[in-house]
Amino acid sequence: MRTRTLVVTGLLVLGLGWTAGRAVGPASRPAADAKAVADQAFEGFRQGLATGNWDAWFATLSDDFTFWFPTGKYAGQHQGKAQAIEFYKYVSTAFPGGIRITEVLRRSGGASTFVYEFRDEGTLRGEPYKNRVAVSFDVCGDRICGYREYFGSDGKTN
Amino acid sequence: MRTRTLVVTGLLVLGLGWTAGRAVGPASRPAADAKAVADQAFEGFRQGLATGNWDAWFATLSDDFTFWFPTGKYAGQHQGKAQAIEFYKYVSTAFPGGIRITEVLRRSGGASTFVYEFRDEGTLRGEPYKNRVAVSFDVCGDRICGYREYFGSDGKTN
Repeated sequence: MRTRTLVVTGLLVLGLGWTAGRAVGPASRPAADAKAVADQAFEGFRQGLATGNWDAWFATLSDDFTFWFPTGKYAGQHQGKAQAIEFYKYVSTAFPGGIRITEVLRRSGGASTFVYEFRDEGTLRGEPYKNRVAVSFDVCGDRICGYREYFGSDGKTN
Repeated sequence: MRTRTLVVTGLLVLGLGWTAGRAVGPASRPAADAKAVADQAFEGFRQGLATGNWDAWFATLSDDFTFWFPTGKYAGQHQGKAQAIEFYKYVSTAFPGGIRITEVLRRSGGASTFVYEFRDEGTLRGEPYKNRVAVSFDVCGDRICGYREYFGSDGKTN
């Protein structure tokens, strides 16, 4: 019990310390909560990719959400939840059968940024598609306020 | 001073707890050390990109180092330090003037995996090159044992 108390104390102090060191939004929370927010958001994201129903993901996004995407119509930096909603719906039109995350390779992060590396596959406009992807979430309070996506292949191998 | 002591204690306890929870190689160390190993390795990596002198980076790699690269001759998964040495030297032949990391966007990680997101630029076989990149390092003891690279653009924007 003594060890457990120390761990919890450590987490709280670390969380407050790290949060104080950088702006992470109006409702900053300790790191332990940020990880839970990110993990829950990732499940909503996974569901959106697989089914085209992005409601759970959209519910986690802050109004000033920014995102970066590597290629195509939405390549580059974008700002605002409204544009994000357009973007993720657009992804599902390109993959009408959904994109299945077949393996989560790593979950990493510790303060306010969390990175998920995974393999995925689907059918992109009629062609078989496989990729490795890293998505990086910034957590602000109980929302995701930043998203950056990176590709690990040309869409043919994972 | 009291707060500082608590933070340090927290880091040590957290490190031991997290390391105990998963295998990170033969010489497991607390997370605080793993972060230092990763950050030092990243500086060697940055130096290698910029100058073509990869010695500091190579010194951090374990003999069973594995790496994943997204495209080209070395696309996919590879194993072994010897092949890694060939690969990074090959990168420098493609960028004889070096690749400069112009901004580190995020450093994240907390247990044995650390991700660096950055903007870079250089000249690739005579053509201007800009990208966003995420590199993910796995730390085993005092070495880097895994590396996965992901691209945030098609090499034309960052």
